[in-house]
Amino acid sequence: MVRSAVPSLMARRSDATSHPPTPRIAITMGDPLGIGPEIVVKSLADPGLRASARFVVYGIEACLRRTAERAGIELDWLSVGRHEDARVPDAGIVGLVDSPEVAPTASGLASPAPTARGGEASLLFLEGAISAAKLPPDHPLHTGAIVTAPISKTSWTLAGETRYPGHTELLAERFGARRVAMMFVGPSLRVVLVTIHVPLRDVAGLVTVDKVHDAIELGREGCARLGIPSARIAVCGLNPHAGEGGILGSEDEQVIRPAVQAARARGVDAGGPYPADTVFLAAAKGEFDLVVAMYHDQGLIPVKLLDRDRAVNFTVGLSPTGMGGAIRTSPAHGTAFDIAGKNLARADSMRAAIELAVRIAKTEARTE
Amino acid sequence: MVRSAVPSLMARRSDATSHPPTPRIAITMGDPLGIGPEIVVKSLADPGLRASARFVVYGIEACLRRTAERAGIELDWLSVGRHEDARVPDAGIVGLVDSPEVAPTASGLASPAPTARGGEASLLFLEGAISAAKLPPDHPLHTGAIVTAPISKTSWTLAGETRYPGHTELLAERFGARRVAMMFVGPSLRVVLVTIHVPLRDVAGLVTVDKVHDAIELGREGCARLGIPSARIAVCGLNPHAGEGGILGSEDEQVIRPAVQAARARGVDAGGPYPADTVFLAAAKGEFDLVVAMYHDQGLIPVKLLDRDRAVNFTVGLSPTGMGGAIRTSPAHGTAFDIAGKNLARADSMRAAIELAVRIAKTEARTE
Repeated sequence: MVRSAVPSLMARRSDATSHPPTPRIAITMGDPLGIGPEIVVKSLADPGLRASARFVVYGIEACLRRTAERAGIELDWLSVGRHEDARVPDAGIVGLVDSPEVAPTASGLASPAPTARGGEASLLFLEGAISAAKLPPDHPLHTGAIVTAPISKTSWTLAGETRYPGHTELLAERFGARRVAMMFVGPSLRVVLVTIHVPLRDVAGLVTVDKVHDAIELGREGCARLGIPSARIAVCGLNPHAGEGGILGSEDEQVIRPAVQAARARGVDAGGPYPADTVFLAAAKGEFDLVVAMYHDQGLIPVKLLDRDRAVNFTVGLSPTGMGGAIRTSPAHGTAFDIAGKNLARADSMRAAIELAVRIAKTEARTE
Repeated sequence: MVRSAVPSLMARRSDATSHPPTPRIAITMGDPLGIGPEIVVKSLADPGLRASARFVVYGIEACLRRTAERAGIELDWLSVGRHEDARVPDAGIVGLVDSPEVAPTASGLASPAPTARGGEASLLFLEGAISAAKLPPDHPLHTGAIVTAPISKTSWTLAGETRYPGHTELLAERFGARRVAMMFVGPSLRVVLVTIHVPLRDVAGLVTVDKVHDAIELGREGCARLGIPSARIAVCGLNPHAGEGGILGSEDEQVIRPAVQAARARGVDAGGPYPADTVFLAAAKGEFDLVVAMYHDQGLIPVKLLDRDRAVNFTVGLSPTGMGGAIRTSPAHGTAFDIAGKNLARADSMRAAIELAVRIAKTEARTE
């Protein structure tokens, strides 16, 4: 059963009182043919999670409904609106900004695969959530945090959107962020990446003193937003054995070490370059609060091995909500087309992403 | 107390009887200023390990003696010889081919650091062990397996040896192996590398169809030597998300996939390219017997995270002992100059390397 949208959706008056307002979180459904609908429904089925904030989902009702039926989940907590009449409902009820015009089919069902329509849909949801973050805080549809379910870059390309390799780069442009980075946050590790979705062939050329220094700074800032004000930061080498004194590549000494030294000169507790094959174990043991990795697999292999389904991607570099930016988190996995539509997906990482967004929003509301 | 070399060192007559001969293992001490002496002494201090094979150490008596004193270990099981009078002693007693002429100082003590003398010494030990492997099997100093303690590539460079980035490449040349690879063997993972000690910048250019196919074949062969005749092999992608269909780099589809298909056409149970950030977890769960990684950190980050001190490096591609080659294993760590000389090193990986060499030698002796 799905409630009608309007009456219960008024913004709570309590937002204006002295205690911090309940965070308002936008959730994008991601690619309709991936596991996005499933992990959104499974996460929000928990009344405890729903009570922790005020949620609006950007997605397609038909897809969510079919997914919920398959999973045996009642949608009596979902409140459907269209853009023009949508509001952020109170905690407990989840608002839905429905976009049936981009549904894969009328029933919401289709074979899991990258499609132009899927790309169009996931872009629409994302742009909706970005617009909501940019609304004035007293607007009924304003949401200061965005939690994104996975998109397919292939779908985006099929939909004609080839400028952005992923969410992070699109968000950086929309929010006018000069520099952003992906930071992965899990129970064992925090990892920030210098380069993200680029071919390995291009990595060495993209690792510059400025980029490494930016990642250290962004990581420090991200840790501060997570409640770690003076993070101990380990910076990975690029080459095997961190270049072994220059024998196995020059970048560790000529690029990474100067960047670490520049950060230290600015008072950041950074060290390195450390050999990447041992530094993550040291971090997991508690010797460091954050590891700066030079490229995708260098950072993601340890994150996924140690934190598995509990890792969250946190975009660092977007200004906080009150300063024209947004909190953005996402699960640390992709669309998983291979298991989509089969009620096999685990929502752990999505749930952790929502919880982290709520936590950061509450922290930032207190310090505003 | 150190025994004199000669009388007890005669080769056992039992070698000629019907049951498999006790394996003969050479152990090189590695860089005298690294943790090599310490992990050699600590491993072989165990009478159970000593009883499992017949051992000869190539090293420096003074270094081993000082290390043993620091660790409170009695060397009454060490039997010192020079090249000309050395023999492989019976199991229980460990032979030492002593090279005092390359000791860092007369006392065997010096600050831990890469030095020309250290490079000269570790090269001498290695060449000694290689020569012993090439001797006829009935020679008193023949050893069919080599376990190498860590060398410093910087020390080798200072000693004027710049041709080989590490043990593996030198061994390949000395044994005339057309192709070799590093394979890491631990309780959780087996991983073989396509490229090894090269700058990350050069990796993409070095990953060719032939090289990937060779690594799959060598991995299959290595697994067979470990007692897994039809290994299920997962091949990593090079790029993030294994290239995501070509969006994030072309090599996964144009290089790695054809190599996997060629291996499959030859009956190898290989699959991929798989995204590297998830495939190791699948392998650790038992879905694959072996992962083929494209470069050093891609393979070593997961090995060191999951198997920590228990991972062993096994050189695949050298012919078995009876066919002009040698078994070669080593610990999966370096000289650790930062903790050398302080009695802080753990010998777990060295011990595991020795045990693996003994196990392979016994298997191959049975099947000869």
